[in-house]
Amino acid sequence: MQLKLQHFDIKIGQHKVLFNIEDAKELGINPGDRVRIRDHESISAIVDTTMDMVKAGTLGVFTEVYEHLEAGADKTVEVFPALRSKSGKIIKKMMDKEHLNREEINLLVKDVVDENLSDIELSAFMTASYIYGMSDDEIEWLTRAMIDTGERIEFDTHPIMDKHSIGGVPGNKISLLVVPIVAANGLLIPKTSSRAITGAGGTADLMEVLCNVEFSAQEVKEMTEKVGGVLVWGGATNIAPADDKLIRAEYPLSIDPYCQMLASIMAKKGAIGADNVVIDIPTGAGTKVANIQEGQKLARDLVNLGHRLGMNVECALTYGSSPIGRTVGPALEVREALKVLENLEGPNSLIEKSTALAGILLEMGGAAPRDHGKELAMETLKNGKALAKMREIIEIQGGDPNVSSDDIQVGEYTGDICASADGYVIEFDNKWLIEVARLAGAPNDKGAGITLHKKMGEAVKKGDPILTVYAEKEFKLDIAITTAQRTNPIVVEGMLLRRVPGTIYGFQ
Amino acid sequence: MQLKLQHFDIKIGQHKVLFNIEDAKELGINPGDRVRIRDHESISAIVDTTMDMVKAGTLGVFTEVYEHLEAGADKTVEVFPALRSKSGKIIKKMMDKEHLNREEINLLVKDVVDENLSDIELSAFMTASYIYGMSDDEIEWLTRAMIDTGERIEFDTHPIMDKHSIGGVPGNKISLLVVPIVAANGLLIPKTSSRAITGAGGTADLMEVLCNVEFSAQEVKEMTEKVGGVLVWGGATNIAPADDKLIRAEYPLSIDPYCQMLASIMAKKGAIGADNVVIDIPTGAGTKVANIQEGQKLARDLVNLGHRLGMNVECALTYGSSPIGRTVGPALEVREALKVLENLEGPNSLIEKSTALAGILLEMGGAAPRDHGKELAMETLKNGKALAKMREIIEIQGGDPNVSSDDIQVGEYTGDICASADGYVIEFDNKWLIEVARLAGAPNDKGAGITLHKKMGEAVKKGDPILTVYAEKEFKLDIAITTAQRTNPIVVEGMLLRRVPGTIYGFQ
Repeated sequence: MQLKLQHFDIKIGQHKVLFNIEDAKELGINPGDRVRIRDHESISAIVDTTMDMVKAGTLGVFTEVYEHLEAGADKTVEVFPALRSKSGKIIKKMMDKEHLNREEINLLVKDVVDENLSDIELSAFMTASYIYGMSDDEIEWLTRAMIDTGERIEFDTHPIMDKHSIGGVPGNKISLLVVPIVAANGLLIPKTSSRAITGAGGTADLMEVLCNVEFSAQEVKEMTEKVGGVLVWGGATNIAPADDKLIRAEYPLSIDPYCQMLASIMAKKGAIGADNVVIDIPTGAGTKVANIQEGQKLARDLVNLGHRLGMNVECALTYGSSPIGRTVGPALEVREALKVLENLEGPNSLIEKSTALAGILLEMGGAAPRDHGKELAMETLKNGKALAKMREIIEIQGGDPNVSSDDIQVGEYTGDICASADGYVIEFDNKWLIEVARLAGAPNDKGAGITLHKKMGEAVKKGDPILTVYAEKEFKLDIAITTAQRTNPIVVEGMLLRRVPGTIYGFQ
Repeated sequence: MQLKLQHFDIKIGQHKVLFNIEDAKELGINPGDRVRIRDHESISAIVDTTMDMVKAGTLGVFTEVYEHLEAGADKTVEVFPALRSKSGKIIKKMMDKEHLNREEINLLVKDVVDENLSDIELSAFMTASYIYGMSDDEIEWLTRAMIDTGERIEFDTHPIMDKHSIGGVPGNKISLLVVPIVAANGLLIPKTSSRAITGAGGTADLMEVLCNVEFSAQEVKEMTEKVGGVLVWGGATNIAPADDKLIRAEYPLSIDPYCQMLASIMAKKGAIGADNVVIDIPTGAGTKVANIQEGQKLARDLVNLGHRLGMNVECALTYGSSPIGRTVGPALEVREALKVLENLEGPNSLIEKSTALAGILLEMGGAAPRDHGKELAMETLKNGKALAKMREIIEIQGGDPNVSSDDIQVGEYTGDICASADGYVIEFDNKWLIEVARLAGAPNDKGAGITLHKKMGEAVKKGDPILTVYAEKEFKLDIAITTAQRTNPIVVEGMLLRRVPGTIYGFQ
């Protein structure tokens, strides 16, 4: 069928075209079908229909397809019904609990990256992944496909080190310590990180307080070769781009299918050519991993997947039921991390966790003998080498290498939440702490966030401030304070009231 | 946040608005989140974000939302982040295999009808329905919610009769015989039907050859009260509108979740106030119901659901592995049905099936004694009362009551497919027969379709025509013939070659 193009100047994240219902009937096609459009080349698009948005004889074309066609508006193209997409059939197989072969997984991931799946298909893919999961083979192929559909970095020297934290625990600024400690000991660690989607600040949001975080894969390679490490936003590179596309369905459904989580973590490590990877698995109430058993399974699966991909992976189950350190929110966390680097001033939990993880990497990379990694990590903090390395990293990423913790601006509007009774801090609600920090403006308002004055088990008196909320805008402070008061993210009770016999987590 | 409206004049089937990424960050929202927009009233919308489609300070509004706001472009509205939609949480519960309560199902169906679910959510809902199914309680609540979210017809006189055929078998024009037979015996049968989506012609497509099929629920009631029956397109009424919205996800995924199929069938019956319903379940290769066991389960579930809703339901498992009668496609099927009404001229399979099903309804409605329904149905065909009633129905729906089978125009371009060898017809491929009819132009080109010259088990000689393809357009005939020759939807073989001992379906 010959149709005249009508450009709708909107990007909708899918290769979609709009037919008048009469033309669609004549072609025998329905919404969700595929057509091929022949201009000077032939491209595939997803059909939608309308009674009135485009006239019969006209094809409504959204920006993604329009740019592909390189045709002017009013130009006439030839349109054919196309076979149902192969990816659609593959997704149907998943829904029927059938296993996929490698070729099928490659095709699916390619269509995800090319935005050649409709939202309907993408969502069914994620839902079926969530419900049924995937076999070890499928997860390996998925990971490899996610690596192969993006850019890769190939370093000339090895080993390459990397680190990842499973999300969910607030204030987890440890990468700002781990990366300089590892790089200061002569190992390469090109760390790509995410921005917060549901959190109060990802490592990329934090690092952005100090310097630029958006670099190409080539720049990541060059900077790492120069100073030993970087702390950049993965989304600015084209490394394992499938992951960002899958979030389009995962986020609105509040799911992170297990197989997709494994693949997305390891694809990013694989794409930068990592040899040795440490993975931090925060465990406990309010994190993504409810208990140690689940944490151990996740650790085994990550180690196994790493082995299949030729990477050494070690995992650390860490205590995640309360925030790491005493701050949540980009600038506050950066200030806290810099203080540790400057003079080891800061919460023990933060220093312990950072040096423990850095120590594992130092051992894996051969910079420290077995069981002496943590010691070397602590030494690297103490002797100022980690701070010096952090300054090099900040400088090469375009920031001020002479920045100190005192220079970091935090929100000028602050308010306290105080204990409503004498007692002990017995519970943090991680999710609500993050929510309060977000309401205060984090991560977009860099100065917004929370400082905690009391931690788990500490005694408080009625009226003592338990936390302070920071905001850059007064109205956001008000909303955050009101919510914190109403929802009470920290529970204070007389300790004996809730003392029950049971297992106590031994780690951390 | 105050934002200026920018209207995108496109209907996208969802309540969606487009934020500049900077405004979205400031509000702390991500694609897939909900916002509330306050104009003179407050409405909810689904968030999408863009780097460049709308400027910071501007809210891109698609037509569905724009029309709701009744605001002019350039007007400023107040926008707030809203809580995650309740329906989203309910869908997540389904994905976690938890059962839903009645209130949750009501909310979900209301959001489907109001187009307040994103494609992502709708697809996850259908995928989880497909994978896990629903309990009997859930299916009852789903059906009731589908009834309650649309218009209902309440007749003053009873009983109200209805009939439904599970799809999948080509040429199933029996409603054109069943409805007039039943109505001619004094029973009310307000039959709403669908148009073909993947088929070669639904009852509504067929009836449209003779008269108008688009009427409001009120008109359906009035016409039924006047002449005893109608044959209209359900999509033009607002009866059980959820079903049409669900197709938006079901069709592209090629799924029809069992629980949704039960609910959608029975909701349409419930909404028109049916007391007695007969359901035709075509069974066998190429239909939706692969074997008798599955057919019996479906029958039990439909009877049970009817009982819960206060309807008497009887089911008939019918032979579905080959077409009903000898024609496929709107005009050809109408001509065949009219010939039966005019003088009982036509294939035995069509007459047998139609009178069997009409007979069940006559017995259920008390118009015939037990076991004498089919006899009365046949008598009603023979004595011309069914034809007279069909003419009344055609007339009240705005058609020519004096139409005869000879008046029906079929496609002027025809081509034969001939047997490539001596033998017997041993296999029909229903799906390919439908595909060939669709390629010839059915159901949109009313004159397009297929006539079968041979049926199952009949002997053919090499070169005998087995089927004739009809089309209104020569190029469509060519495509259909080429495809039919290549794919050979009717298999001819020497009978003994494939004779195997086994069960023979005893019915029909």
